[in-house]
Amino acid sequence: MPRLLFALLLLVGATFAPATSIAQTTGQIVEVAVPAPSFSGNLLGTPDTQNAAIYLPPSYDQEPQSRYPVIVLLHGIFDDYGVWLENVGVPGILDRLIATGDVPEPIVVMPNGGNRYGGGFYRNSSVSGDWADYIAEDLLGFVDENFRTLVSEESRAIVGHSMGGYGAINLAITRPGLFSTVWAMSPCCLAATEDLSFGNDAWKRAAAVSNAEDVQQLIDANDFFPIAFLGLITAFSPAPDAAPIHADFPFEVVRGEVILDGPAYDRYLDAFPVRQISQARENLRDLRGLALDVGLDDQFLHIPTGALALSQQLGEERIPHRLDVYDGDHRQQVSERLETVVLPWVGGRLEAPQ
Amino acid sequence: MPRLLFALLLLVGATFAPATSIAQTTGQIVEVAVPAPSFSGNLLGTPDTQNAAIYLPPSYDQEPQSRYPVIVLLHGIFDDYGVWLENVGVPGILDRLIATGDVPEPIVVMPNGGNRYGGGFYRNSSVSGDWADYIAEDLLGFVDENFRTLVSEESRAIVGHSMGGYGAINLAITRPGLFSTVWAMSPCCLAATEDLSFGNDAWKRAAAVSNAEDVQQLIDANDFFPIAFLGLITAFSPAPDAAPIHADFPFEVVRGEVILDGPAYDRYLDAFPVRQISQARENLRDLRGLALDVGLDDQFLHIPTGALALSQQLGEERIPHRLDVYDGDHRQQVSERLETVVLPWVGGRLEAPQ
Amino acid sequence: MPRLLFALLLLVGATFAPATSIAQTTGQIVEVAVPAPSFSGNLLGTPDTQNAAIYLPPSYDQEPQSRYPVIVLLHGIFDDYGVWLENVGVPGILDRLIATGDVPEPIVVMPNGGNRYGGGFYRNSSVSGDWADYIAEDLLGFVDENFRTLVSEESRAIVGHSMGGYGAINLAITRPGLFSTVWAMSPCCLAATEDLSFGNDAWKRAAAVSNAEDVQQLIDANDFFPIAFLGLITAFSPAPDAAPIHADFPFEVVRGEVILDGPAYDRYLDAFPVRQISQARENLRDLRGLALDVGLDDQFLHIPTGALALSQQLGEERIPHRLDVYDGDHRQQVSERLETVVLPWVGGRLEAPQ
Amino acid sequence: MPRLLFALLLLVGATFAPATSIAQTTGQIVEVAVPAPSFSGNLLGTPDTQNAAIYLPPSYDQEPQSRYPVIVLLHGIFDDYGVWLENVGVPGILDRLIATGDVPEPIVVMPNGGNRYGGGFYRNSSVSGDWADYIAEDLLGFVDENFRTLVSEESRAIVGHSMGGYGAINLAITRPGLFSTVWAMSPCCLAATEDLSFGNDAWKRAAAVSNAEDVQQLIDANDFFPIAFLGLITAFSPAPDAAPIHADFPFEVVRGEVILDGPAYDRYLDAFPVRQISQARENLRDLRGLALDVGLDDQFLHIPTGALALSQQLGEERIPHRLDVYDGDHRQQVSERLETVVLPWVGGRLEAPQ
Repeated sequence: MPRLLFALLLLVGATFAPATSIAQTTGQIVEVAVPAPSFSGNLLGTPDTQNAAIYLPPSYDQEPQSRYPVIVLLHGIFDDYGVWLENVGVPGILDRLIATGDVPEPIVVMPNGGNRYGGGFYRNSSVSGDWADYIAEDLLGFVDENFRTLVSEESRAIVGHSMGGYGAINLAITRPGLFSTVWAMSPCCLAATEDLSFGNDAWKRAAAVSNAEDVQQLIDANDFFPIAFLGLITAFSPAPDAAPIHADFPFEVVRGEVILDGPAYDRYLDAFPVRQISQARENLRDLRGLALDVGLDDQFLHIPTGALALSQQLGEERIPHRLDVYDGDHRQQVSERLETVVLPWVGGRLEAPQ
Repeated sequence: MPRLLFALLLLVGATFAPATSIAQTTGQIVEVAVPAPSFSGNLLGTPDTQNAAIYLPPSYDQEPQSRYPVIVLLHGIFDDYGVWLENVGVPGILDRLIATGDVPEPIVVMPNGGNRYGGGFYRNSSVSGDWADYIAEDLLGFVDENFRTLVSEESRAIVGHSMGGYGAINLAITRPGLFSTVWAMSPCCLAATEDLSFGNDAWKRAAAVSNAEDVQQLIDANDFFPIAFLGLITAFSPAPDAAPIHADFPFEVVRGEVILDGPAYDRYLDAFPVRQISQARENLRDLRGLALDVGLDDQFLHIPTGALALSQQLGEERIPHRLDVYDGDHRQQVSERLETVVLPWVGGRLEAPQ
Repeated sequence: MPRLLFALLLLVGATFAPATSIAQTTGQIVEVAVPAPSFSGNLLGTPDTQNAAIYLPPSYDQEPQSRYPVIVLLHGIFDDYGVWLENVGVPGILDRLIATGDVPEPIVVMPNGGNRYGGGFYRNSSVSGDWADYIAEDLLGFVDENFRTLVSEESRAIVGHSMGGYGAINLAITRPGLFSTVWAMSPCCLAATEDLSFGNDAWKRAAAVSNAEDVQQLIDANDFFPIAFLGLITAFSPAPDAAPIHADFPFEVVRGEVILDGPAYDRYLDAFPVRQISQARENLRDLRGLALDVGLDDQFLHIPTGALALSQQLGEERIPHRLDVYDGDHRQQVSERLETVVLPWVGGRLEAPQ
Repeated sequence: MPRLLFALLLLVGATFAPATSIAQTTGQIVEVAVPAPSFSGNLLGTPDTQNAAIYLPPSYDQEPQSRYPVIVLLHGIFDDYGVWLENVGVPGILDRLIATGDVPEPIVVMPNGGNRYGGGFYRNSSVSGDWADYIAEDLLGFVDENFRTLVSEESRAIVGHSMGGYGAINLAITRPGLFSTVWAMSPCCLAATEDLSFGNDAWKRAAAVSNAEDVQQLIDANDFFPIAFLGLITAFSPAPDAAPIHADFPFEVVRGEVILDGPAYDRYLDAFPVRQISQARENLRDLRGLALDVGLDDQFLHIPTGALALSQQLGEERIPHRLDVYDGDHRQQVSERLETVVLPWVGGRLEAPQ
């Protein structure tokens, strides 16, 4: 649940009128309610209006003729855009980077990505809703309509962390021509290994869930892995008719052991990026910048493994990219790296007026 | 716990005197108690006398001058040698293969490998005891002394399943000149991935064990993965001074998350065969036969992954071997494959009198 | 050039009438001329009638009601079917294996695969002709029509060596339902690495060929690698309009250095089996038997590398198979392995009348 | 051969006395002759005095109390330090980066690395001389003695291109505590694959060389690969007693085919970095910065393959690093990347006075 009270904008234009003649040195955060038809008919009760936060750069009000490049930030599971504003400190980071000229003034868009199971993985699903379409169409459409953006691939970048890192890669693979620069920070779910493998017996607890009370019990027990797995399986292996979870689990648990279902397992594995690079290579080669990073002490063991495997696949398919493997964990360096590495690198690739 | 009553042999020699003039067509099973100094001082209470079953071939009594090649069979975790005799049907398999001439008459040695946590992984450990030494010295020494074996590498093979498959590979790596032929069936623990990864949250329950009652609770709950992990960690990462488990867990659990301890993690990973092939390549190249097989639907997901990774390592180090990847699970094909594939292949490599 | 004089059969039926009542213990070799419309319009002058040798098993004439399973043998580059008859000694091998009952009596079909550049790689090409179609349709159609074969996948196997090993894999990938058992011995061309890489500067000499005299000069100089590369490039990267070689070389040589042409390089690499396993996995999983072997001292360095890479791909796509990595070179073990390993394994998977 | 006339410094100190009171904005190049006892007794006639170029930063003369961090630049095969000065334009790059504050003022040391066969690979060899010792001891000792350097690991970085990229990695692996930051640009020779594989038949021409005239013939024919291979084999597989080349070729050419010599091949392969990461992991983890980059269209096909393989090995051994895979070839981006990516990244990790 969002940890912010939203000042929802009904008349977006009216909001930005500070009309001061003094040069602003800080940007402003605007919180918006975005119509999200991409969620119509989803089976998880995700509302078809979604909140998002928008960072408008310091000059936005003073220079009403200016248009700005767009950076989308995708957060991780069990979070909302508040994590960017509060924990990571994105507004201050942007203000500083703009002040030093390290990043051209951008509009930064921070959508929510959460649902009943922690998140929708920014991926289209017949059960959890078409999250990729939401970002690509509903959200960017709304932003391009209501704010003075530069509407072109060359002026659009996407950065995500963890589940959002996956989301950024997924959009790069499936939506050519939308973003020209992509950075996935500690991206989850590139490959179904280690803690994400069906060998993690938290899957058994996920597969045993049959109703909302079961989910609540897991929440009460701080047992988040099975809940996240419900988010994952409804995003990656949706099956609208398969009540109660509406997902196609590619395994059964028989006497405590995992028995794989071959064809379903195939389909499930094929949904992960390490198996999609080959078909998507033209899309990915067209990017101006593609990068991923990972801390070696990531608490989620599949993340280093998956990032290395993706880099290798990218290399084999002759796709330019940058890989940063650093000494750190899943969260502690996010703020610092965003400021010193990620945003300067992303900003340097965005087309913006001089 | 053994599912057999043992007719322990105190005077081994006296037992074999059926003195019949009719040609035998079936072998006999002899159950022996083997002095096992390799377990002295182990911290898990594993007794220093160990039972084993010995298959003596049909001609053994009629031909008192004959000497026979030796095949050692290593069973899996939570089992004992009874699994070979009853579930797999080794005596009947051997009788049939000998009758058709597909395998030269062997003495087949079936030790126990179990301990308080399911098994010692046939590996030397300052906590669980020197299981590799037990097989290589105590057991083979006993057999060579008390039975008419051919005492040479060329006449000795080892076959193991699951934990025993690991054990066979481990002995091939660490004990050059002992066996000339090795087959690891569905070998566990070649690499610390998937269900064996610290990403499997059964590790959290293993790390929370602090006394025998905790272990009993896991047993009562049929929660075997954490117990097996205690067996694994005491075998692969023993630390005699680290009560209560006497093991060096290479991670901590902090707020439900796995925090790796780098140096301990290094040491732990280095103990797995995929990281030992390079140093052991001369030992492994000297073998007459090295093979491993795996079913693609193995319930223990690290086993297919690990077998493929080991084969790749063997190939990179230019070590001859055979890899069979088949359609099947962890157990159902063991009996059939032992009879139709494994023992004929092993038998064909054993030096035996015509 | 064929090293045999062919006794071409115009009236195939008339040939098999020895009508002796004594049980034959050796098979007979029949040499046939197969109409090969698959070569119509090829640009290398490969004739549209192709010779082949057929081994008919000992009982073929005595049991005119019997039908027999079929094994196709594909030879390597710069060879013809004579290599099976003379160097490898296939007829004697078959006679012995049939006598001991290790292989059910088969009809064994040995086509030619050579062309102006050494060979057509048993692959469809708009320049070198549709070699895969020739095997699958022209040749098998001819054999099924003129000999008493069992006409079903379950009774058909294919074995190839070197270029023929590639051919066997290629047919398994592209022609589901034709063969149920496939063994690739020391298969070439699974991946474009090592000596097959454009890093091998023999490619520069291949790219410099502009007419038949250039080819003859290479032959006179015993410089076979460039010629084989012309065979490879016309098979894997044909371009009918690109005179003189009619191939799309995915590189240029500029000042002695290889400059890759990205899109052409993509297409070329995609033509190799290591990149085709994923799409072909259903075809390959349906096989009863799929095996490949390789000697670690193979003179053609890409062959061990490629075989290991293919096995790994097969494993990742969950495709059952056998990999034998042995101590040996490209040729010396072919005869022995065919008799002791390959044909017994293949024969054991063929459906044949009792 | 060096393309510069050297103004060799006999009295180094005397050279730096421009004594101007105007702030310099450009650095100066000093060319020095370095005593190189590491080459004593080498069998290739490499002289034991070696020329090098030193860039002294703009403030060097004005601030006689200042000490400066050190960056060593290692050039590629068939080059000398002139390539940095002329082709790459290092002095101008440094002047600009210092002017903008993107890099702290460094002393930049550019040794020569060439020998009779193109280069010594900055590697110790009993035949080509101890090139690693030359860099680590002779050269750095000379520089620390004669110039006002900051003498500590934290203030020392190394950057190399191609053969020099290999050299930088090799020094990182073998010389802990010398450099804290390492960037290998398009590093050669990380793995013996593709054009570096014995599958490249340029090796056959290298193995056929028996005297200086043969080498000259190759030079006259612009046939540089075999010469480079002589440089490689004398560096990686030296054998002082094996005249005429004084190297242990791990293969023979028999009837035009490569026959590997197993044990020699092992030793040779083990000398490449992809096989040394595991043992060197502590050394490499201690670095502040380790990076490698490669262009996907590198003319030397083993370079992209090797860089990807090294990154994967680094990841598996949990060693922090950065990998940049870019759209480009072996040379054209070197200058631009050095200025916009490499030196700013390296400079940001060097300890320097404010």
